[in-house]
Amino acid sequence: MGSDCIFCKIAKGEIPCHKIYEDKEFFAFLDVTPINKGHTLLIPKEHFKDIFDTPEELISKITPIIKKIMVALDKAGFGEGYTLVQRNREAGGQDVLHIHYHIIPRIKGDKKIIFNLIEKPSEEEMQKIANKIKNSL
Amino acid sequence: MGSDCIFCKIAKGEIPCHKIYEDKEFFAFLDVTPINKGHTLLIPKEHFKDIFDTPEELISKITPIIKKIMVALDKAGFGEGYTLVQRNREAGGQDVLHIHYHIIPRIKGDKKIIFNLIEKPSEEEMQKIANKIKNSL
Repeated sequence: MGSDCIFCKIAKGEIPCHKIYEDKEFFAFLDVTPINKGHTLLIPKEHFKDIFDTPEELISKITPIIKKIMVALDKAGFGEGYTLVQRNREAGGQDVLHIHYHIIPRIKGDKKIIFNLIEKPSEEEMQKIANKIKNSL
Repeated sequence: MGSDCIFCKIAKGEIPCHKIYEDKEFFAFLDVTPINKGHTLLIPKEHFKDIFDTPEELISKITPIIKKIMVALDKAGFGEGYTLVQRNREAGGQDVLHIHYHIIPRIKGDKKIIFNLIEKPSEEEMQKIANKIKNSL
């Protein structure tokens, strides 16, 4: 795995990028299709497709690094707010099949990320949904 | 803090919800304004406004629980893919000012979360942006 993966190549320095952060296991760089200036992608250097196949000892380290990068974006003045997005599988909106976290500076009222809601299910259906999930935990 | 916070009240059982998951420090329940069926919110029970004021020892535990809930949603058949969203401050899209993670089942082509991109900055500007962030890390 990884020989065809653009994010593996970026982490190895085989494809140029605008690097933000690197440690032994993680790498962060500017997204080339940004939602706003400063839009950063955080990846593990090792190839894992999505959250489902990323090992526990690695994922516990992710949110602290996300926070570190958001604090830096904020200090550098790139946003008034920040949105984190991580997409799994094509249906989840994932384009590159190497797990990555979008760290996105936002400006008030920028309308850059739009949510389309469904009508709220009935209380009865909500309880059925919750039970189904709980039974799968 | 917390006496007026709807998520604090939900975690304490003072406001009813459709609970998915609970442990000593975290609580998850169905979002009442869902993007798709099974849309779940994960919160720490203790009140923290956003990622910026959430302590390190707590945030390292978040992603493993997100994974656990996504695996359960997947087993229960709620999505073909999954999107994680976490919004900080009003400009970041945050509505309730108690840190929360949206765990959203997605169906292929559902167009439920729309990103509006900017034109890619020049290579020179991208490098300036990256340097500014790195210098704030």
